[in-house]
Amino acid sequence: MWRLYQFPLCPFSRKVRLLLSEKGVGYELWRENPWDASDEFWKLNAAGRTPVIEHPEKNIVIADSRAICEYFEETVDRAPMINGTAIGRAEIRRLVALFDENLFAEVTGPLLYERMLKRIVHRQSPDSRILREAMKAAHGHLDYIDWLVDTRPWLAGATMSLADLAAAAQISVIDYLGGIDWSGHDSARGWYAVFKSRPSFRPLLSERMEVIQPPSHYAKVDA
Amino acid sequence: MWRLYQFPLCPFSRKVRLLLSEKGVGYELWRENPWDASDEFWKLNAAGRTPVIEHPEKNIVIADSRAICEYFEETVDRAPMINGTAIGRAEIRRLVALFDENLFAEVTGPLLYERMLKRIVHRQSPDSRILREAMKAAHGHLDYIDWLVDTRPWLAGATMSLADLAAAAQISVIDYLGGIDWSGHDSARGWYAVFKSRPSFRPLLSERMEVIQPPSHYAKVDA
Ligand SMILES: N[C@@H](CCC(=O)N[C@@H](CS)C(=O)NCC(=O)O)C(=O)O
Ligand SMILES: N[C@@H](CCC(=O)N[C@@H](CS)C(=O)NCC(=O)O)C(=O)O
Repeated sequence: MWRLYQFPLCPFSRKVRLLLSEKGVGYELWRENPWDASDEFWKLNAAGRTPVIEHPEKNIVIADSRAICEYFEETVDRAPMINGTAIGRAEIRRLVALFDENLFAEVTGPLLYERMLKRIVHRQSPDSRILREAMKAAHGHLDYIDWLVDTRPWLAGATMSLADLAAAAQISVIDYLGGIDWSGHDSARGWYAVFKSRPSFRPLLSERMEVIQPPSHYAKVDA
Repeated sequence: MWRLYQFPLCPFSRKVRLLLSEKGVGYELWRENPWDASDEFWKLNAAGRTPVIEHPEKNIVIADSRAICEYFEETVDRAPMINGTAIGRAEIRRLVALFDENLFAEVTGPLLYERMLKRIVHRQSPDSRILREAMKAAHGHLDYIDWLVDTRPWLAGATMSLADLAAAAQISVIDYLGGIDWSGHDSARGWYAVFKSRPSFRPLLSERMEVIQPPSHYAKVDA
């Protein structure tokens, strides 16, 4: 059985969970807080980061969410998520990088630090200037998602792909942390509502990170 | 003809250049400074980052170095760099992420900021505390490369792969900026010396970033 080392608000682990669920791959969740990682966890991943996936019986360990997603794409035919022509696949991977790196660095990461790590680890209150900047940056990314949704059926083209999963994973964490304001972003909001109603998304929406509560609309499929 | 938008000390562009050269794909260099990116460049890449590769005649644009490398891996058979079993490929991609993200975030990025951007953009002198921390982090990464080299013929396994190109690209920029101290790292040093003598590496070593000079050993194949 696959074991996914993660914590509830890790957006990269959420992307992997969406992929595994869409592909019908079973797995167990193993809790790991990277800010407090055990020696055993550092042995599994020299980067000390979540997610890591392990299959103890098969002696497989893979770290890094993109390496994990490419692995399951190569080994499980069902629900292809990095599909199409070489150019189409490049577009999917470009967008995954944009959401994993830029959206994370500008929005998800700062919100996780201010609203989660500061509370759990540093016992400090969030810096409202940084929160404001992150929420401003979120609008810029939602504008770009609006544009993608207005131009194409799914973010990277004609079919749902890892780009959609990557964006939805980040947005779900941002929304949990109160950082999403949909006003002016009807297109992105419509795309995300479709996503929220998928069976693969349900377990994420019902999960809670201890101490931190999401806003009331967070788990509602129509909000 | 392919056009690669880059600047001489961008480690991600260097990784792409090594890959293209190993695969025998011709390209032209187009200079782009992301800290001063043109509107045209932002239209090519919504992330505003280098590298971007374009083929104007074929109407192809790809941004993000990993997306670019996967594209050429899929379309050019020569010199496979993400090769082997699904697990072997996952190991390559894990290491690429480790070098692109962790080595960059802890060492290359801070050195580029302190020694290049501060000089060119901000007209400030580098913060010696940050330089010291980056060089300390470099030792940690070189320890890990020592261990890989002692365990395997190449960083990710039996053959040269994108993991070697990714690590060499970062290290070459760190070395240019005076951040590599090989003492205690004979294994990593031996691996890098082999790399430096490859034809694909030569153009990188002879190039200079205006204003900033590398240490004298930088371009010497035996140093
Ligand atoms: N490129 C990695 C990024 C993973 C990542 O940044 N994970 C965060 C948690 S959301 C982490 O473990 N951070 C701790 C650290 O970087 O030390 C991936 O895609 O898996
Ligand atoms: N994931 C990207 C990272 C590229 C990157 O960070 N490029 C740097 C130059 S070395 C850049 O353009 N930075 C400007 C910015 O992030 O705004 C890739 O692999 O291509």
